[in-house]
Amino acid sequence: MAGGAAVAVSTREKLERARRASTSLAQLSTSQKDALLLKIADALEKHSNKILRANDEDVQRSNLAGAMRDRLLLTPERIAEVAAAVREVATLADPVNQVLEEWTRPNGLLIRKIRVPLGVVGIVYESRPNVTVDAAVLCLKTGNAVVLRGGKEASASNQILAEIMAGVDGIPAEAIELLDSSSRDTVQELIRARGLVDVVIPRGGPGLISHVMENALVPVIETGAGNCHIFVDESADFEMANRIILNAKTQRPSVCNAAEKLLVHTAVAAKYIPQIARKLTDAGVELRGDAETRRIAPGVQPTKEQDWSEEYLRLCMAIRIVSDVDEAIEHINRYSTKHSEAIVTASQINADKFLRKVDSASVYWNASTRFTDGGEFGFGAEMGVSTQKLHCRGPFALKELTSTKYQIKGTGQIRE
Amino acid sequence: MAGGAAVAVSTREKLERARRASTSLAQLSTSQKDALLLKIADALEKHSNKILRANDEDVQRSNLAGAMRDRLLLTPERIAEVAAAVREVATLADPVNQVLEEWTRPNGLLIRKIRVPLGVVGIVYESRPNVTVDAAVLCLKTGNAVVLRGGKEASASNQILAEIMAGVDGIPAEAIELLDSSSRDTVQELIRARGLVDVVIPRGGPGLISHVMENALVPVIETGAGNCHIFVDESADFEMANRIILNAKTQRPSVCNAAEKLLVHTAVAAKYIPQIARKLTDAGVELRGDAETRRIAPGVQPTKEQDWSEEYLRLCMAIRIVSDVDEAIEHINRYSTKHSEAIVTASQINADKFLRKVDSASVYWNASTRFTDGGEFGFGAEMGVSTQKLHCRGPFALKELTSTKYQIKGTGQIRE
Repeated sequence: MAGGAAVAVSTREKLERARRASTSLAQLSTSQKDALLLKIADALEKHSNKILRANDEDVQRSNLAGAMRDRLLLTPERIAEVAAAVREVATLADPVNQVLEEWTRPNGLLIRKIRVPLGVVGIVYESRPNVTVDAAVLCLKTGNAVVLRGGKEASASNQILAEIMAGVDGIPAEAIELLDSSSRDTVQELIRARGLVDVVIPRGGPGLISHVMENALVPVIETGAGNCHIFVDESADFEMANRIILNAKTQRPSVCNAAEKLLVHTAVAAKYIPQIARKLTDAGVELRGDAETRRIAPGVQPTKEQDWSEEYLRLCMAIRIVSDVDEAIEHINRYSTKHSEAIVTASQINADKFLRKVDSASVYWNASTRFTDGGEFGFGAEMGVSTQKLHCRGPFALKELTSTKYQIKGTGQIRE
Repeated sequence: MAGGAAVAVSTREKLERARRASTSLAQLSTSQKDALLLKIADALEKHSNKILRANDEDVQRSNLAGAMRDRLLLTPERIAEVAAAVREVATLADPVNQVLEEWTRPNGLLIRKIRVPLGVVGIVYESRPNVTVDAAVLCLKTGNAVVLRGGKEASASNQILAEIMAGVDGIPAEAIELLDSSSRDTVQELIRARGLVDVVIPRGGPGLISHVMENALVPVIETGAGNCHIFVDESADFEMANRIILNAKTQRPSVCNAAEKLLVHTAVAAKYIPQIARKLTDAGVELRGDAETRRIAPGVQPTKEQDWSEEYLRLCMAIRIVSDVDEAIEHINRYSTKHSEAIVTASQINADKFLRKVDSASVYWNASTRFTDGGEFGFGAEMGVSTQKLHCRGPFALKELTSTKYQIKGTGQIRE
């Protein structure tokens, strides 16, 4: 059982156990892993009352309200959704053991590059208990041991979820380890465990991500921060621009792929800004803008320099008028977090330039930034959205939870 | 000119310049980059006297001897080799803009994943001045700006090499930045420059690599440490085993893919160990071994526990007798640095098990570990050998100096 309270197990021991478990996990066949995933889904549904009781305890104790409470809350429907997502992962292709390349050298050596599990994957996350299940099953599917360090608000929910999963018959012992969420020390030990942990993935707000990036000694996949831009070009279809901007800003303002900044080509600013400003204001969006925007659309508040870098994560948007696509690209490459940016234009030339020159993980032509998501990309799952350039970039899921290995077959070759 | 002494430019300014340069570098075409590489090769040859004078200054000042002096030393032949290697890089395939995947979603979105440059690549290295050229041209070929921080022994050589390369007509200004090697602060600033530097690659001894791993805030590709093993199985052809072990241990003992440990199956230990011990001793190798090995082969010195983890990097080898391939695998997975390991066996079953279960970047059946090298793998070049699992593993070169980006084309799609 994961992190049972009866026996106090140190974080170090849990990491060492996970390391050992990773060896047997790496040897499981795809059908063995898929069978375990289906058992996990069944077990979650079977124990759904237990999960709801633990979750209710968390909700009562943490005393959160609004969006925070909603993130923490589990319902019978949500548990059913989580179980369905686990079954979905069982249907996805297993990247492990995939042969990526194979070639023979002039000296006869046969070199094969194959995908292998990463080994031990650490996840540091906040209040959403469904991440406990999502992360564990994606790691299991890819033959990785997982070490979970969730938020303290969700501690009872995470505990029961990890126990149910780790208790499934056939799951290698200690494949799913849950660390104590009552102390910051467990985060620190996890992210500094060089040699025991192969990668740490932080999932949560900017504070959590910065803390992990600044303190980790093990490799990290940086996720999440999204100061996303939409540029409305001179030739944009205003109707389409309205639809995309309203969707990207208001459909779910608290997520990383929501738009935060609007850039408008100067040639259409006077005509376009008043109409989109009205629509955004009607949708409850607070608007800020540069001096020219404020002249055109009264009621818009002034921006400060920091507005251009800020990820609002709420119904707020800053507007700036730019002279052309080049200035839009320059602004974005200077201020964005390199997550997702979009151009709305009828010009193929400007679109190509934007797609080529904007240095972000996902760059859109005539579509909402909200599509930056593993599910929307067709991956069937998502572990996060990488905003770094190493290992993976953009939405990532199963393939990115693997590494590679070279297997070389010879007949006695030595190096001259 | 890179880091000219006339104007004192701070490390921060150099990093910011490199960041700016990366934007134009990313837009160079393959033929533009290849033309620049050929000009660099010509310039290195043209200025070879200048390079030799600067190198002589370094050699005199540093007062090194033996292998250390040899690493630092440049000769007309070595400069010609360096220039030839640059011309070779110009002939290699350019990974940038390669389309890796492309698909259309049910909603009509066309998603394309392409390779893009990493951006700004930092290299921290020691006394070999040829790394200055190798690293710079691999980064140029992949459209990356490079920030070089070499060893202080090679400072005059590195300075002139960087000046010659950066001075080539057509090289984007500040594409090749050289940091001051007289202070440790420049390493610190480079490896902590989040947002300016996309990856740092340390190349050098264990002290350098540990320092970078422990202090970096930017993503790192860990390279180099190689505590490599050879396992002689029960069914091994002894003649082949001798050849492979002598090659892997003695051909170039100071490098990371040299073998450091020898494991021998107990069933053949009494017969095999005396003969290989004699050959190794004749080749000048100091031998250490477990109690049973010492009984079989007198003159072998005792091992301490730390021997099993140590990378000797010299003519020294430790021998251990194991009961079977499983114990060999267990020993290796416990002590190795996950660089390169080999099995010598006639058994396909044991070979497959070894290749599958040994958790190292390169795993060999009947071949020397010395083949773990970008050139030997057929990459045409090498930036290093990664011993981490994130981003790349094993020898890496051009492809691994790239990241990816998603370009998404729509017709006004929004997320429901």
